[in-house]
Formats: sequence, C-alpha cells, structure tokens
Amino acid sequence: MSFNTFGRLFRFTTWGESHGPALGAVVDGCPPGLAISEADLQPFLDARRPGQSKFTTQRQEPDQVRILSGVFEGKTTGTPISLMIENVDQRSKDYSEVAVSYRPGHADYAYDAKYGFRDYRGGGRSSARETAARVAAGGVARLVIPEVTIRAWVSEIGGDAIDEDNFDFAQIRENPFFCPDAEAAKRWEKIVDEARLAGSSVGAVVECEATGVPAGWGAPLYAKLDSELASAMMSINAVKGVEIGDGFSAARLTGEQNADAMRPGNDGPSFLANHAGGIAGGISTGQPVRVRVAFKPTSSILTPVETITRSGEASEIRTKGRHDPCVGIRGVPVVEAMMALVLADQKLLQRGQCG
Amino acid sequence: MSFNTFGRLFRFTTWGESHGPALGAVVDGCPPGLAISEADLQPFLDARRPGQSKFTTQRQEPDQVRILSGVFEGKTTGTPISLMIENVDQRSKDYSEVAVSYRPGHADYAYDAKYGFRDYRGGGRSSARETAARVAAGGVARLVIPEVTIRAWVSEIGGDAIDEDNFDFAQIRENPFFCPDAEAAKRWEKIVDEARLAGSSVGAVVECEATGVPAGWGAPLYAKLDSELASAMMSINAVKGVEIGDGFSAARLTGEQNADAMRPGNDGPSFLANHAGGIAGGISTGQPVRVRVAFKPTSSILTPVETITRSGEASEIRTKGRHDPCVGIRGVPVVEAMMALVLADQKLLQRGQCG
Amino acid sequence: MSFNTFGRLFRFTTWGESHGPALGAVVDGCPPGLAISEADLQPFLDARRPGQSKFTTQRQEPDQVRILSGVFEGKTTGTPISLMIENVDQRSKDYSEVAVSYRPGHADYAYDAKYGFRDYRGGGRSSARETAARVAAGGVARLVIPEVTIRAWVSEIGGDAIDEDNFDFAQIRENPFFCPDAEAAKRWEKIVDEARLAGSSVGAVVECEATGVPAGWGAPLYAKLDSELASAMMSINAVKGVEIGDGFSAARLTGEQNADAMRPGNDGPSFLANHAGGIAGGISTGQPVRVRVAFKPTSSILTPVETITRSGEASEIRTKGRHDPCVGIRGVPVVEAMMALVLADQKLLQRGQCG
Amino acid sequence: MSFNTFGRLFRFTTWGESHGPALGAVVDGCPPGLAISEADLQPFLDARRPGQSKFTTQRQEPDQVRILSGVFEGKTTGTPISLMIENVDQRSKDYSEVAVSYRPGHADYAYDAKYGFRDYRGGGRSSARETAARVAAGGVARLVIPEVTIRAWVSEIGGDAIDEDNFDFAQIRENPFFCPDAEAAKRWEKIVDEARLAGSSVGAVVECEATGVPAGWGAPLYAKLDSELASAMMSINAVKGVEIGDGFSAARLTGEQNADAMRPGNDGPSFLANHAGGIAGGISTGQPVRVRVAFKPTSSILTPVETITRSGEASEIRTKGRHDPCVGIRGVPVVEAMMALVLADQKLLQRGQCG
Repeated sequence: MSFNTFGRLFRFTTWGESHGPALGAVVDGCPPGLAISEADLQPFLDARRPGQSKFTTQRQEPDQVRILSGVFEGKTTGTPISLMIENVDQRSKDYSEVAVSYRPGHADYAYDAKYGFRDYRGGGRSSARETAARVAAGGVARLVIPEVTIRAWVSEIGGDAIDEDNFDFAQIRENPFFCPDAEAAKRWEKIVDEARLAGSSVGAVVECEATGVPAGWGAPLYAKLDSELASAMMSINAVKGVEIGDGFSAARLTGEQNADAMRPGNDGPSFLANHAGGIAGGISTGQPVRVRVAFKPTSSILTPVETITRSGEASEIRTKGRHDPCVGIRGVPVVEAMMALVLADQKLLQRGQCG
Repeated sequence: MSFNTFGRLFRFTTWGESHGPALGAVVDGCPPGLAISEADLQPFLDARRPGQSKFTTQRQEPDQVRILSGVFEGKTTGTPISLMIENVDQRSKDYSEVAVSYRPGHADYAYDAKYGFRDYRGGGRSSARETAARVAAGGVARLVIPEVTIRAWVSEIGGDAIDEDNFDFAQIRENPFFCPDAEAAKRWEKIVDEARLAGSSVGAVVECEATGVPAGWGAPLYAKLDSELASAMMSINAVKGVEIGDGFSAARLTGEQNADAMRPGNDGPSFLANHAGGIAGGISTGQPVRVRVAFKPTSSILTPVETITRSGEASEIRTKGRHDPCVGIRGVPVVEAMMALVLADQKLLQRGQCG
Repeated sequence: MSFNTFGRLFRFTTWGESHGPALGAVVDGCPPGLAISEADLQPFLDARRPGQSKFTTQRQEPDQVRILSGVFEGKTTGTPISLMIENVDQRSKDYSEVAVSYRPGHADYAYDAKYGFRDYRGGGRSSARETAARVAAGGVARLVIPEVTIRAWVSEIGGDAIDEDNFDFAQIRENPFFCPDAEAAKRWEKIVDEARLAGSSVGAVVECEATGVPAGWGAPLYAKLDSELASAMMSINAVKGVEIGDGFSAARLTGEQNADAMRPGNDGPSFLANHAGGIAGGISTGQPVRVRVAFKPTSSILTPVETITRSGEASEIRTKGRHDPCVGIRGVPVVEAMMALVLADQKLLQRGQCG
Repeated sequence: MSFNTFGRLFRFTTWGESHGPALGAVVDGCPPGLAISEADLQPFLDARRPGQSKFTTQRQEPDQVRILSGVFEGKTTGTPISLMIENVDQRSKDYSEVAVSYRPGHADYAYDAKYGFRDYRGGGRSSARETAARVAAGGVARLVIPEVTIRAWVSEIGGDAIDEDNFDFAQIRENPFFCPDAEAAKRWEKIVDEARLAGSSVGAVVECEATGVPAGWGAPLYAKLDSELASAMMSINAVKGVEIGDGFSAARLTGEQNADAMRPGNDGPSFLANHAGGIAGGISTGQPVRVRVAFKPTSSILTPVETITRSGEASEIRTKGRHDPCVGIRGVPVVEAMMALVLADQKLLQRGQCG
C-alpha cells in the first residue's frame, strides 16, 4: 500500500527518491487567481536546504523549484500545480553494504518486509529529501491563507530545552538551529557538534504556532483539526510524537487549571489561557494554534550496531555517508509547511460546507 | 465541514448525538464470511459503558448494540454493517444555562463559531457518547485481525504514573481504572474520588499495545502507520497528545540509544529493543505496536469559570449534570477500538497492494 | 470490495438489505442551519414507493423515513444526518430455489464469485429497495440547492418513445408511468400490462433536467460534472447507459450542428441550443443540465431460463415473487435524487475552492 | 473545485497544459516488483500521438515519456511513479481572439465562469493533450493486469457504422481510424477528409472490450464496475455518452431477450449471451467487459459561429489552428488506457477486501 497524497480539498501528492533524477509535488485544488512565482516558494526551500552549516548534512543541493503547470500570467489557474526539484548531488558511492544489511532505526527492514525489495540508495523514498517537495507545496498553501502567520522553532535538542524567558523569535535566523533562545543556541552548538564528531546523533523538539486562524476551522470528530495536524506532523520522517496545546502536560492538570476561561473581546472572546492549543472539540477557537513535535535522533550513526542481513544472518552495520547529526533542525521548515498545508485545506473545507 | 468517516478500505461512519434517539456506525468494506453476532460486539460496549462505578458518569445506558444489515446466516456478507445503539437515559434537565453561555474547555464556542448554532443537550455531537459507536465498530474490526492481540490500560492519572515493575495486565479487571498496577490503583481511587467530590476533574494517559502485527503494514509517508494511529487517537474526545513508541522521550536519546538492534530470529529479526514502537519508516516491523495517548481532564467542572454568553457578555458557568471525573478511564476501550480499526484497514490495504 | 458512499463534500452512505429489519442512509457534510423535517423527505419516498399501481411491484411498504441525528430544533446542525426506513413487508417465502440456482441477469452469480456467498432473500443488498435510502438522502440534498429545480420523466418504455410535441410535464402525475405525453401513457399501459401478464418485463429510458444550475459547477477532468453524473446514474440498479445532452446522437452531428452558439443575455450568455446538456469542459454553463438514463428490463421474469446451480450443474429458473414489470418507472424519483445529490456536492465544492 | 486524481487503490494524478513546458502523471499505489521501463509505455503514447496522418491534428509531438521515480533496477518499488512528457511543438501563435471571445462547444466560457480567467493557449488544461498523461499511466496499469487483454476500436464515424460481419481486429493497424472493418475505413476516409477540408468536424463512437477479467471485480453500488467505467470514460475530453453492454438498446429488449443464460462451463458458467457487457449487479461475471463511448464532433471548426466576448458583447469566432477533424479517432488509445486504469484498481480492491 502506498499513499502519497495529503489533504481533502487542497491536496498535494509527492513523488521522488533520494537518488533519482528529481522529486516533486502536484498541488491540486488550489483556488484560482492567486499571484505566484517560483520566487514565492524558493525561500522556504532555501531554509530547508542542506549543507548550510556543519550541523546539517553536507550534501549540496541547490533545491531550485520549477513550476511546470497550473500557473498562467503569474496567477494560479485552479488546475494542478506541478512542482519539480532536480537532484544534483547524488554522490555515486558504494551502497553494497546497505543493500545487504538492514540499518537499525531505518526503514530498510520494513520496506523489504512490505515490498519485497527497496531502492537502497540514500534511503530511496524514505529519505528526508522527500520533505523538499512538501516544503514547496507548503509555499503554495501559504498563499491560500494570507490571514495566517506560521512560525516554528526548535525548543529542545538532546534533552536541553530553551528557557521561555529568553524567547526571542528574531534569534532563529541568527543561529543554525532555528533556536529562539540565544543562550540555548550556544549550548546546542556544543551538543550537536559533539554528536557530529562522535558519529552519533541527537533528537529534538520542534514547536509551531499559527496565529490569525479564525474560529471555526476543523471538524468535530474524524477530521478534527487536532487529528489532521497529528496526521500531518507524524508523516514527517523521524517524528514520533505530537502534542496539541499542552498535550501530555494537560493530562497532569485539573479541570480548573486546564480551562481556558473567556472574557468579552473585541472580535469574539478574549481567552485568559491557551491550554487547548487553539482547538476545542476539534475546531479552531481563534486563539493561536500550537503544536509540539518530537523528532527522534537521526538513525544514521557511525557506531556499529548489531543487525541482520537480507538473508537473515547476523551482521553489524555503521552508516557511512553524509547525514544530519540532528534531523529535527531541518524539520522546522517542514513542520511549518505541514501546518500551512493543513490550514489551507481547512479554510477551503470550511468555506465549502459552512460558507 | 464535517467528516464522520474513518478508514480507507475498512471504513466506518458514525452518527448520533448525546440526547438524540440513538447513535450508530456504518462499517463498510468489511471482508465477507466472518462469523459475527451482536454478542461479539457487546463485551466491548460493556467495558466502555458508563455508570459502572462512582468514578465514571452516573448516566445509565444499557448500550445494547443491534446489527441492522450486512450479516446473513451469522456471517458478514461484504455489504455495509449498520450498528445502532439506542439512547435510553437522556435525562430531561434544564439546558437553558449551557444554551446561553459557553463552557470553557468544551466545544460550545467553537461549534457556534463554525455552524452558527449547536445542539447543546449533553454536548450534542461532541459528547463522549459518540465513542460507543466506535467501540461497536472496533468490535467488527477485531474480527478482521484475529492474528492481533490488542490491550490498553491507564498508565497515569492526575500525574501519578504506574510503576512498570508492578505491571500485571490481569489487574486491569480488578479495579475501576483499567490499571495494571494494583498499588497505583489504590492511590488513584483517592485522587479520582477527591476530584469527584470537589467537582473537579483529572487527566490521564492511556497506553495501548498490539502484538501479532506482521511486518509490512503501513505506508512510507502520508499514510504512515504512525500517522494513521495519530489521526485515529486524536479523533477521540479529550485527547491532546499521541506518542508512538518512545515518542517525546526519543527526542532525548542519542542515535545509539534509540537504535533497535536486530539479531537473527525464528521468523524475521529478533529485536533487542522497541524504541520505535513497532514502526519504522511508517511500516510495521513485526514488533509490538505501541502508542501512548494523553487525555486532558474532563472540561465539565463544578467550579465556576469566567466565560461569555452567545451575545458576547461576561458571564460565569459551572457545569452541572453527570460527568466523568476522569474521562481518560473510559478511554481505554475506545483507544483499543481505534487501534483495531486502524489495523484492520492496514491489513486490507497491504493485501490489496502488495498481496 | 464494497463502497457504499457517494460524494466528496456532501456525502451519503447507504446500508440495508431487502429482507433485513431496515435500511438507511447517513448524510454527512450537509451545511448547518437548513430547515428540515421528515415531512420534507417523505414526498420523495412516496413517489418511489412500491405497490401504488398494478404496474409496479405489489410489495407493500409504507417507507416512512425517520431522522435519527443531525437535526436540532428543526434545523440541520452540520453533523451527520442518519435516516432510517423500516422494512415491513418482507414476505417469508421459500427462497430455496434462488439460494441454489443463479438467476440470469441478476447479481446472484457475481455476488457469489466475489463474496463466496450472498443474502439471497429478495436480492439482498442488490435489491432495488436500496434506492429508498438514496431517495431519502436526495431529499436532504434538495434543501442544499433551493436555486435548482429538478424534474425527471420516463421518455421511452419497451422501445416506444414519447412525442416531444406532446410534452406536458404536468401529465406525469396523471399516469402511473411518470409519462409527460398523455398518448404515450395510454400505449404504455398496454405494453407494461402485457409484459406483466406474460411474466415478462420491459426496459425504459428516463430523462432528467435540472434548471437553475449556475455556470461554474463541476471540474475539468476526473470530477467532470458529466463524470459525476454518469457515475451517479450508473450506480442505480438496472442502469446500463448514460448520456449527457445529446449523448450518442452528438456523435452523428457535425461540429457546426453541435455548437451551442451564444448571444449576449441578461445574466451571462443566451445560448441558441443545448446539445452539450448544460456542461462544457466538465463544468456547468448555466443552461439546463440534461441527462438520459437507460434501464434494462427487470431481470426477474416468469419464463424459465437456462442457468447453473451453485455447484455448477445445469438447471433452469423462473423468478417467482413480486416484481416491477418495468423497473425504470420507479427509477424516476431515484434519478432525480441522484441528480440532487451530485449537484449539492458540486455546489459545496465550488464554494470551497473558488468561493 | 479541481480533482485531477482517479482511482481508489491504484491512483493516478495528471497535470499539465497544452502550452506549458510539460505534462505528466503521478501513479500511486502500483504494486511493487513489476518489471517496467519507458519502452513498455511508449507504444501506447505512439498510438495516441498526433500528426501521424492527415486525419488528425498536425501538431508534431514526439511524446517521449520519462519515468522520474518509483522504479529501481527495472522494477516498480511500490512508491509513486512520476511520468513526464515534454511539450515540444507549442506553436507561438496569436491567441488574442480566443483570449477575448468564447468558442462555442469549448470549455472557454465555463472556465471563466468557474475560475474567473483561463489559460487560453491551445485550450490550456482542457486540451486533449492531457490524455497523453493518462495513456502513459494506462501503460503502467496494464502491467498490473497481465491476465486481461484490452482492445478498442472506432465503430462509427459521422453516423456511419461498421458492419459487424466485416469485423477483423487486425485491420485497426491498417488504416488511420482504428477501424476493424476495411470497407468502413474506406468510407470514413472520405467522410473525415471532407470534414477536414470544409473546416468542419465529425463525431465518433469508440468501443472497448476487456477479456480475461475474472468474475468478482467491482462492487454492488456506488463503486459498481459500471459506475467506475462510466466515470472514467466520461472524464475523457469530448465524451458525452457511455453504454455498458447493450446500453440503451437494452432498454428496448424484454427480460427474456436480455437474460444472459448460463450453462455449465469449464471454469465457472458458460454464458449464452452478453447483453450485460460482462457486469451484473456492478460486479464482473467473467465474460468480456464491453463499453461503448460517444465522442462529440471536435468543437474547433473553421465556420464562424455566433458567440459573445468576455465583456458580454456579441461576436463571432472561427477556430483557427491545428485540430483533429474527428477527435474520437485518437480517443481509442485513451479509452483503452481508462479501461486498464479502472481494472487495475478493481483488481487491487478485490484482493484487499475479499482476498
């Protein structure tokens, strides 16, 4: 089974492998008449692009996005928008070891169990390179929701969390970690560099906030805004946990503590707190929508790990090659893209059924 | 917008409100020829049924499920299975306050923002009574996956977690909390009772494990088994967080710590750990599939909370009526049902596309 | 495989068998705030109801529809609307013959080939009784599109077509054939009665026109309005052909003859012809949407037909029991319902993506 | 609204415009392990390619298909297969007239009504060039159903039908009309050439037969095999009618005439006739699946037709440029492709739910 499409009205389908000629996305259902050019999408790809510091993989990819359809005279036409990004730096290395042995933590064994064989070059379809296609699609989604501001950051690396008192969003462009706390960024430099030099890796937590989401987006149950966001975030490579608002912390509060009390506001209620992360009963409340996402440490490490071969024999494997020592860092633009993609879809759905 | 269907090949659609005449589910895509009767489904409804201890809502509902279609001579026919559960104890109380004022933490304001008005009787569609329909559908799903054993339990209430060393699954039928740690169960009795007597509420964490899932179910990206589970669990009322395997804890591990090393086993690999919760690259590995789910405290509390009225004026509200002091407790059979519903769907998908 | 849901935003799912306790539909995605009661739906069910003349099956079913959810204080709430119709006249007859032998033209053999067995009582799920559920759902759909007027009629029975010069829509309530040509109705009385007395059956063509559909509903390709209508109409039992506008006759025209020329009109163009049936490039043009639907003769006939048994032996079968000698007649309200269901969906889709 | 995806398990999404840089399809859900190369797909594109005789458009397109993903070591991997076809001969002509005036019979007005504007170059998204992408996808679908043989032909042009007694499928490669009747082909040469020289156009009927389809594919109701085929065929540009088996002719038969009687056969029943076109109750019976499809005459004609401009003023338009005088001819490989795409999907669905 294979599903590479996400969304209900605003839908995108991604394709491509790490070492194929290109990868891309087809965005379908985009409203017509939106001004768009490749320059609108490129900054998001640039933010995700590898090789920009020693803390991310050294693969050099320009990640130039091309729009192949769906745009006429600088505007979306309402027909599918085909986005393509060529792969440039598929280094021809020796894949004989990974072809034969399963890398623990990777998709290798599961792919073989499912499909009978796999494209083992650079992880094939399971490579984080796929996220370039989402980020491009996310750039289109942002055009659909100009009323919404989305921003994400890394709030924790290797178990070391930022201090909320130091939170300064402007900082995220000042360090290679999308870190809003200048002091934490310094500490992370050491943490990530040590992991990198040791051939190890560390995990991270990414947070994302969308402001400007009006009350009323989402649905009561099987397409709850919480559900859609959880599905979207879990679809990112290496993600293993999702929280909406207080998430697991809410399970430790009492009903009184967790209630987001309301006072009369200018336009709808003025909330006194936002434990719910901007979503009640599956529907947005007009407060900022807040999500936290857990990225496991990169599974590619230089330390040898016990494993088995395709034929079931005992073996050992070290993952050579170029890798992110903390894959969560470059997850920031991906989390933002998924937030945009979910919200664009919800906006259209709400307009359709309750317009 | 409203989506009340879940699943791709094995699909179910639920309908019904807290105070309507009935609620139900239509299960579509169930394979033919499975032996089934109402008696196969009733035990799951009984486990979820309210009013069985002082720690859950006192609403008395027999929750008898009826099969209205799709079964002939005791076997599924492959056509849609309509399940209906009548509402019996819709107490005719005074809803004038909740009709006018929004209960913080509840769906009230969001529903009004979305739909313009709402069925305010007992929470209407946003009531946890809807989960009775899922539990019935989940009973059908279990018949599709006899090779899988699903069990869930409460692992934390009000911030008080079980001790893994005391874990004894047989205990969950010995206390009213689905608690596998007899000592924790005693402590929780006090915690929940205090919350109940104070008109307050507490949150909970539910864990679920599915054993017997073969390697190969799931999909690489937008229908990753992690994604499907996250979407399914987040669709349960009051859930605000989902973890697969180690979840957020994985973000605090190094790559070495997080690697689930493999040794040759009898049938596929023998894994030395299960940080990944049985899913790698979105696809099952043959290990137990493990999920943790965070339930916020019940939003219905007797303490007055600041709020506004439908017309935007300042007000205050206390939620009278019958409520669960810890809605997570009765979440256990619901989490199990959602696990079964996701896995039944994945089994059919795998058989269809890689059979 | 089994799909019992139709629609994209405005969706309905039907369930139920000919001889089960009930059948029904769940309508999901209906906009909130529409005034509705059972009395709004009943007239459509009454039009489809069997046993109203000697020209339709003598099964007596009151076909009273109940609304079980999704409505509060007389208005739709935006949550799923569950509709149920009880089966009353499931005559307990001897089904031993049909259980063993396949009726040619019926679904019997195909069901067995697909599902391994079947509910043979009265055709089970393949019975035309299922259409009662669609007609109820279609009644809800009509409320979504008050700007549209839908009317259908029988234009041909047993190869005998109406004379367009005699077309008087008011006539369709004056005869038991939904025939707008009083003279044809007289001829059909003879045709259908002869078929009935001979234990035979005849086919029919139903036409349907929707006026008031604004320009812009539909989609260019895989959800062309033509495609959606064709899929909807073909889903009706016994339908084997669908034409949009001139249909097959258009294949005999030249480009000049087929062009629907335009002149300036009051509100959009004034068209000089409607060969296209109100749809160009998959999208409505503002002209009346016109569809023609071919119903085969009822497969249930009293003449013995050569067949085989479940075990593959030569046999012969006559279909005893109560049947429509011309199943197309009662197809009229069903075709209208499917037109309404498609258009309601398209209205919401258009509002969502191009609103 | 815009839906450019077709299928349920075996799905494809097309993108691209007549005068953009390229067009393509993403095929998702293809089973893994199928041997595939571009050479497997090219023959189908070559059959559809324009400019091969004077009876089709003179646009010269090599229509070389490239596989960009989803294939490794010559086999499908189970991940999405991206197919791209570059546009080469987008002649830079003057589109000022068609930009301003609506061509009757074309999608021009409907697109403007829907989207507010349109890519008017060569028909943009509504151009029959889109079908190149489907034909490529159809080539992949054929690999999924090696047990099925699909063949289509033109059975009628300009109202002149073939003589079934002359039917010789080998003939279809001997004339430029995919005509299995050598004598009809001669007559059509005159008919189409006259239309071409007069700047006019003619319609056509295409028939398609799939043999080797086992009994049991399809579904009872809303995904009846008839419905899926009707939706698929109606999604082809210029198609306005679809018949399964006898189609409208069945409406003129009696029940006895229409019954496909059965005798014991070697493997399942031996049918004495195939009025049903190989589908009963929405499910294949094992007989050949037969479909007839009506193509209207090409709307592009040189005769001036009355129309209006975008600003609503009276005007007149002749469609200059390169066009097919009978668009139905090149519809043959497209109808075959859609048949393959539907059947591949049904095979996987059947395997999934009744396997």
